[in-house]
Amino acid sequence: MSEQLAVGLLGYGTVGSGVAQIIHEHQEKLQHQIGCEVQVTKALVSDMGKEREVPSGHIEFTTDADDVINDPKIDVVVEVMGSIEQARGYILQALNNHKHVVTANKDLMALHGTELLQVANDKRCDLFYEASVAGGIPILRSLTEGLASDQIQKVMGIVNGTTNYILTKMANDNRSYDDVLAEAQELGYAEADPTADVEGYDAARKVAILATLSFSMNIDLDDVCVKGISNVTEEDLAYSKQLGYTMKLIGLANRTEDQVEVSVQPALLPNEHPLASVKDEFNAAYVYGEAVGETMFYGPGAGKLPTATAVVSDLVEVMKNMRLGVNGNSAVLPQYEKNLKADEDIFAKYFIRLHARDLPGTFSSLTSLFSELDVSLEKILQLPVPESDVAEIIIVTHNASKSAYKSMLKQLNELDVVVEVKSSYRVEGEEA
Amino acid sequence: MSEQLAVGLLGYGTVGSGVAQIIHEHQEKLQHQIGCEVQVTKALVSDMGKEREVPSGHIEFTTDADDVINDPKIDVVVEVMGSIEQARGYILQALNNHKHVVTANKDLMALHGTELLQVANDKRCDLFYEASVAGGIPILRSLTEGLASDQIQKVMGIVNGTTNYILTKMANDNRSYDDVLAEAQELGYAEADPTADVEGYDAARKVAILATLSFSMNIDLDDVCVKGISNVTEEDLAYSKQLGYTMKLIGLANRTEDQVEVSVQPALLPNEHPLASVKDEFNAAYVYGEAVGETMFYGPGAGKLPTATAVVSDLVEVMKNMRLGVNGNSAVLPQYEKNLKADEDIFAKYFIRLHARDLPGTFSSLTSLFSELDVSLEKILQLPVPESDVAEIIIVTHNASKSAYKSMLKQLNELDVVVEVKSSYRVEGEEA
Repeated sequence: MSEQLAVGLLGYGTVGSGVAQIIHEHQEKLQHQIGCEVQVTKALVSDMGKEREVPSGHIEFTTDADDVINDPKIDVVVEVMGSIEQARGYILQALNNHKHVVTANKDLMALHGTELLQVANDKRCDLFYEASVAGGIPILRSLTEGLASDQIQKVMGIVNGTTNYILTKMANDNRSYDDVLAEAQELGYAEADPTADVEGYDAARKVAILATLSFSMNIDLDDVCVKGISNVTEEDLAYSKQLGYTMKLIGLANRTEDQVEVSVQPALLPNEHPLASVKDEFNAAYVYGEAVGETMFYGPGAGKLPTATAVVSDLVEVMKNMRLGVNGNSAVLPQYEKNLKADEDIFAKYFIRLHARDLPGTFSSLTSLFSELDVSLEKILQLPVPESDVAEIIIVTHNASKSAYKSMLKQLNELDVVVEVKSSYRVEGEEA
Repeated sequence: MSEQLAVGLLGYGTVGSGVAQIIHEHQEKLQHQIGCEVQVTKALVSDMGKEREVPSGHIEFTTDADDVINDPKIDVVVEVMGSIEQARGYILQALNNHKHVVTANKDLMALHGTELLQVANDKRCDLFYEASVAGGIPILRSLTEGLASDQIQKVMGIVNGTTNYILTKMANDNRSYDDVLAEAQELGYAEADPTADVEGYDAARKVAILATLSFSMNIDLDDVCVKGISNVTEEDLAYSKQLGYTMKLIGLANRTEDQVEVSVQPALLPNEHPLASVKDEFNAAYVYGEAVGETMFYGPGAGKLPTATAVVSDLVEVMKNMRLGVNGNSAVLPQYEKNLKADEDIFAKYFIRLHARDLPGTFSSLTSLFSELDVSLEKILQLPVPESDVAEIIIVTHNASKSAYKSMLKQLNELDVVVEVKSSYRVEGEEA
């Protein structure tokens, strides 16, 4: 093996230039860890004419990806260009050329992770992707290391900064979803088309990656049951608060024996749950392992230096493995058959808010419905709705199966005394 | 290098037997990570006759430490026996025999860490001690890895489970310190002599280790300014709560340019601070790095499997380094001269609770005293003390130097209108 390790970048935007900067500025520390020199030698860009910051004069820029992925002198390819199909093609070619790969591309890993990891494994190459989930938090490495001596039972993640920012502002300032979204767009925290964030699709990709790794099952994006935050109202947040809950968009991966559930939804957490205090655009992952118990990792989910730092930590790992001759061992390829829970086996507590006629007998119609469905109630809050003959009723159930929950919603809507079921949410992070 | 790495244990109690168990049960995964077999070959015990769980038949027990530390076939010595002087002697001898060392001994590392790391460095050996601070949280590794591409500005840790349990119960159930301590002792959460925990000495050892690593300065135990929780009252907790704060025993390591402050004290955090939700016997470390920003790690601070897992993660690191030929590089030896802040340079907000005569003019005497000391006030709460002519007054200041704070306390006690200054605490985790 040569005494210099060469890195080729696919993409030289915010993250790519951050990676080059960190490798340049921390060269000595990196050499101490790895045992040899590390250099970024080439970078793929789309426009040669663009002015860019280059930390040292040695990076050769090119607009031809082959210059990077077919260069026999390059040991590791770092993909930070985004896109799905093109990135997939480049990474496959790099792996086929026996190059190790580090990527920050969550869309790619959520859709094609298992295929790419399989190819990497066949070629005895490393494929690392720490930066794809919660950039500033070493969550994938912690899960992988944890797995070496533990069994992961549950992961709950706040893995989308935009939605956490919106929910935090709505709750703190009693403002509407539309109002806060518009502000977030102005401030650059939300995109002009916010669909991927607010409908939970971005979080779903990350939770698919987390679940695949945690349970060693090939969890597809289609396996993730997704609900976003665009229907959350100020009233929902106000009543949640009154009952001691904080609403978060939670990516959930949950195992009971050999069956798993993977979902993304706005869920209510008790205020004292560690995830409840994760504010604004921060990310966090709460992990329950059989041996170690509860742990949580909290930090920035994005940003140039946090993300580039995650990429560099992957690079260090690849290079240590190269020198150890153990590349291709660290990838946790799905080992088990996917075994998803049916609705009958998914248990949770539910928060249900409805408007009912404020008449004698309303309450007993409601409670007898719950009792028929064998769902017991933990909390009930009833308030008059001003200037109407309607009562606002909030119910928090004890554990109920998802199928019982669905029947419950249907039958509540059919009850004469119920004007409208306004909203319902899962309650997580409490004992049953 | 041989194709089997041999580990010798000094101590085979809870943690030692946990290490042997994990190495046995996860042998295949460990081999995948390291590239060769790992075995515990010998263990030092004090009583040969005692019955003990042994995961495989291959461990040779001995009552003579030399059998372990002078065995040329042993590559790594794991010290999990406790004690200070004896452990120090064994570790020095092991290092002099060119063996790598993993220890879980916080007392030893806080008192002799710099000396031992220096010897390890001279011998090009690794000396790792992840399990010495917050067993279930990979905080030392995160700091070390973070340091490779970041500068740590601040660490705030809840690093003592006993005191966190006591403060949590006092606050939640409105109970007295003595009452909760007695219960904690009954339940085994506090020792018969609780001094080391409740007076903050245990936390001080851990924060000395954290500060030494974070700032690369040789922070001695004597450099840590320590205050425990034995004088905390129910009233303090009730008024803190009323003002939106949660009290925690905080180990603080804080840098401003090249000057540092290291302390342990009960401090008030805003309820929405991530550390405020760390309950019961859990530990957590909040880290502020220049590049990555805010991160927090949360988990169990002790326990057989969490601590043994931390020891095994150190072992994996040592063994990877052996195969890489980079042992002795990872140790972060103090590189900078210690430069401690004077009281004039330590700034914080303070919560002060006092009893004053309920007379006209009381308030203006108080406020003119603060104004003379150039300390401005953020919050004031005044309540009558039932059946007395005394008022309960709680003041939260804006940032003040520690020297101004000391003058303030002295002069408040000398004021005619003040009956007694009941208590005072730092307020941390807010903007100035």
